[in-house]
Order: sequence, then C-alpha cells, then structure tokens
Amino acid sequence: MTRSSPEPVTAVTDLASAWLPARMTEVERRLGETVAGWGPELGGDTGETLAAGGKRMRPLLVLLCAGRSAGLEAIRAATAIELVHMATLVHDDVLDDAPLRRGVPTVYANSGRRRAVAAGDLLFSRAFAVLADDGGEDGESRPATDRQVELLAHASVALARGELAQRRDAYDTGVSIERYQLRCELKTAALFECACVIGASRSAAEEAALLDFGRAIGLAFQLLDDVLDVVGPPERTGKARGTDLLDGTVTLPFILARDADPSLRETDLRALDAATAEQVCDRIAATGAPERVRGEARDRVERAKQALRASGVGGEELQMLELVADGVVERYS
Amino acid sequence: MTRSSPEPVTAVTDLASAWLPARMTEVERRLGETVAGWGPELGGDTGETLAAGGKRMRPLLVLLCAGRSAGLEAIRAATAIELVHMATLVHDDVLDDAPLRRGVPTVYANSGRRRAVAAGDLLFSRAFAVLADDGGEDGESRPATDRQVELLAHASVALARGELAQRRDAYDTGVSIERYQLRCELKTAALFECACVIGASRSAAEEAALLDFGRAIGLAFQLLDDVLDVVGPPERTGKARGTDLLDGTVTLPFILARDADPSLRETDLRALDAATAEQVCDRIAATGAPERVRGEARDRVERAKQALRASGVGGEELQMLELVADGVVERYS
Repeated sequence: MTRSSPEPVTAVTDLASAWLPARMTEVERRLGETVAGWGPELGGDTGETLAAGGKRMRPLLVLLCAGRSAGLEAIRAATAIELVHMATLVHDDVLDDAPLRRGVPTVYANSGRRRAVAAGDLLFSRAFAVLADDGGEDGESRPATDRQVELLAHASVALARGELAQRRDAYDTGVSIERYQLRCELKTAALFECACVIGASRSAAEEAALLDFGRAIGLAFQLLDDVLDVVGPPERTGKARGTDLLDGTVTLPFILARDADPSLRETDLRALDAATAEQVCDRIAATGAPERVRGEARDRVERAKQALRASGVGGEELQMLELVADGVVERYS
Repeated sequence: MTRSSPEPVTAVTDLASAWLPARMTEVERRLGETVAGWGPELGGDTGETLAAGGKRMRPLLVLLCAGRSAGLEAIRAATAIELVHMATLVHDDVLDDAPLRRGVPTVYANSGRRRAVAAGDLLFSRAFAVLADDGGEDGESRPATDRQVELLAHASVALARGELAQRRDAYDTGVSIERYQLRCELKTAALFECACVIGASRSAAEEAALLDFGRAIGLAFQLLDDVLDVVGPPERTGKARGTDLLDGTVTLPFILARDADPSLRETDLRALDAATAEQVCDRIAATGAPERVRGEARDRVERAKQALRASGVGGEELQMLELVADGVVERYS
C-alpha cells in the first residue's frame, strides 16, 4: 500500500486512536518546556522558532516502535531524540549561514552565530538531561536505562561524524557512491535507527528487525531529500533547487548523472551561483537520475516494511508505521 | 598551607603514590583513543591538538574525590568530563575566532569553522558514549549510573547557558556583580562541582560538602583567570592582556575598578584594539582591583578547603586535593 500525503506525521496522528496523539502532545509539551524561557538568554523569539518547526517524524517513530504499552521512558526518549535533531539543525544552519528553515528565520539569523552555537549545545545537553531525569512527577516515572543513553550518544557521534565526512567530501564532483552511502548512514540513518529501538526493550531478533526498518527509512528519507533538492518544485519544497550543490554537497542524483553526462564532473562547484546551480540541476534531471534515485528510495521503503513485519510490532502500531514509511518517499518537504 | 606551582596537576601527580598517576595515564589513554583516527576526517593534525593540551584539572578532581577505592566508573567519568571540557573549548575557539590556545593552533584554525563545530559536537557526544559504555574490557566494568549521566548533562546545560549569558552581557560596561557571579557559576563552577561528585556515590552530607568544595575552587579558578587577563604577565600566561575586553567580556576586576574610576564605564569596548585594551588593563590595575579579586579567590580556596574537611575525604586524597585547591590560585596559566 502506498499513500500520498504531504504531512505524513499529521496523517498518522489523525488516523491513530487517542493514545498516540496524546503522547505526541506530551512530547510537544516537554519540547516547549525545554526551550521556554530562553527568550531573554537567546534574544528574540528563538524559543518560538525552535518550538514551532519540524515534522516530528523521529518522536513519532519512537512512540510507535515502543508501542502503546510503553511507559514514560518512551516519551522521554521521544523528547530527547527530537532535541538532538533540533540541536543538529541549529548547528547546521550556523555552518550553512542559513537565513531560513521551513520559511522561518533560523536561530542563527535571529540571534547570531555565537548564540546559535551555544543554543545547539544547550539543546544537546538538555537531550541527555531529559533522558537521565529521574522525574518524580508521577508513579510511572523511572530513570532512563544506560541502554538509552548509549543509543542516543552513539547516534549523536554518528551525526557529528557525518557532518565531518560531508565537510571532507565537499566540492568533490568525483565522490564515490560508497562515500555518499556512508554519509547518509551517519547523518540520517543513525538517528532513525536509534528512534526505532530507544523507546522500549525488545528481544534481540525484534530489535535487529527494527534497526533494519529504521535504517531503511532513514536512507530513503535522505535519498528523497536529495531528489527534491534537484527537482523541487520550489513552491512545494519551500527552497530553491540546487542548494546542496551551492553548499558543495554532491549527492546520488549528481553521482548517477555523472555516468550519463561525464562533463558534469568538470563542474566547478565553488564557482556556482543560484542560477548556474539550477542549470546543473536541469542537466542532472535530463539524465533521468533523480527518478532512478526516487525508485531506489521506494525500494528501500518496501524493504523497510518487510523488516517491520519481522519485528513483532503488530496492530495499529504496524499500520501506522507503514503509513510513516510511505510518507517518507511521498512528500515534498 | 599555600604552595606555589605553575603546574598544579603535575605537582600533584608527582607527589601522589602510584595509583593516581596510573589512573591519570589511563584517562589520557582513553582521551587519546577517543580523538585518534579523526585526522583524516578533521583534516590536519587536529587529533594531536586535542590530545595535547590542557591541565587535566577536572579529571584529577574526579579521581581524587572518588578516591583510590573507586573503580572503572571513576576513570570513565574523568574521561567524559574532560571530553565535555574539550568540546566547550573547541566551540569557544570558534566563537572567539581564536587562532591559538596555549600556543598551539586551535581546531578552528587548523580545520575551519565547520569542522570545528562538528568536532566539538563529536567530543560532546563521545563524552556521553564513554559514560554509558558497558565496556566489557575487564571484570570490573559496569555501566554508568543514571546519576552520572544526569550530573554531566546538567553541568553541560550550565556551560551552554553560561555562554549564552556571556553573549547577553557582552560589551555591557555596567554589568552587575550578580550577573558576573551567575556567569562564573554556569561557565566554570558547574563543571568543577560535577567533577567532585561524579566519580563515586557518597552520603548526602559528604556529597554536599564536595559540591561546596567544587563550587568554591571553580569560582576561585575563574576569578584568577580574570585577574591574569588584566595583569598578565603575557610571557607567563601565554596570551596578551585584555583579550576578555576585546571579546566584550566584562569581569570582576573591571567591575570593581569601575567604582574607583567611574569613567571606565564610558569605555566603548567595541572600539578597542590590542593596544587600547592594554591601556584599559593598566587603568584597572591602577585601582588595585585585580589584587582585591586575587584576595577574593584566595578566600574562596580557604573556604573550599574547609568544605573539603567536612566531606569525609581523608588520607592522601585529602592532601592532594588541598594541593589542587592551592594550585588554582597560585598559577599563571
């Protein structure tokens, strides 16, 4: 089954029975609490910027994979993983000098480079504080397991290594598929994998299946991001085509197009401007590479769904996770 | 007893019996392992830069406060806390555009802004990974307690909040003593406090005494840093006088001097250059404020030693911690 939805998370929480939206609301409340009150420290309405954005796909995965029988530790993990994701975005925007994200001014734009680096560090620290918080707000509360801290820390290490790998590969028009794959695993798949297993403990076999699921949809998610950067359309993605190229980031559509159009390898990425970057996108699109990558992303989603059926997740959780998986490749932003 | 030593940590490890240098060596090995192999990812000899520097005062505090009977969890905590400290320094150097630290090129200078932000994130993530690592390398190994994760996460939150507070106060020549005190607590004392209690669990009363000890030497440490920035001498501190002022950071020597020489309040810190910053330092020194702050730092060290004697720490650990406390104010770098 393939469903089309521009907002997979909303679609899922609208369809699910009450436990899921209630828990997502609780995660949202905790995220809001975590960033509330920073207004004076950060200057401007950065708290709102932080609290507002995002598809919340990772917390949704945490809650669904943990299942409705999971307790407060799943809500804490969902909150923590989104805080790490937010921290990464705040630092990425500093690195990319990005004025806007999803049409809203970035923390970097609102508060400057120094405050944005510190704000990212703060979000990051808060993630681990949330996980380790011994709560006390209700009888259900109990501290995070070391397992959860280890999972989140290892995913965070992967995110930082992914950024470093991207820097190393920057502007290299001859970069290999293997390097691209490694970057996707580090920068995107690792946190999806983490999301799928951090909320609750399962048997080793079930956990392995959920890791496969998370990895596959993470890679599909990144592949589709990279397709959208080439083909847009900007009025739906909310950003200009070719922004990755302008940043020196060579992705799979370019790599595949390079075989059909070897002169692409001669492109001087450092010399691109917005207009010439769009022209390169047109040349990539002309080879059919973006559609091949989109097909690859869909294949991975199918494999993800196969892994999911071996994971022991059933009932409504299974249905909803299939919807999330489909939503990963049927989206524009 | 007050001892003078330019390198308090070396003095302590030289005097202590074998367990302490052996454990410090083990911490050093783990720090080296953590940064080893990043050469290719970071570009240049950043791994060496990271591994080389630092007084390692925080790990020393962890090991001494935990005591010789503590196990592997103290070594892990000592490693983790130094990684958080290193992460902070790497990010601080990005924020300050700093070419050198302790006479060695910074990660920022070696590898650029983007890689340095990612390298800081990586060190930070590794800190929590080290703490949660379930090891397995020997029979003694066991996972970190949630207590340790919570302590380190809360200290990290404080560090980031301290940086934000410093940004907020930047260039404000009228900043209050209370704001200065808050910044010192967040940016410096919080990690010292954490170091003194993270290595081993103790009774509530003993832990409270160790927190008092850590807080007092942390504040003394910061006070002395701020004195050295005004009075130098550069040939011993390894940096020019007035670098805080050039960065817009108003510290206690300036605040106290402002009372004796109100015209200091009119200083346009944004208009300073290296030469005029030194002139401001001379005006601050002329009021006697730096020596009053140095006296304040010494008072805090005495209070720290009083707290220490109520902490239940005894024997060689007590002697060595008193040496560390003295070293905090009897140093030039």
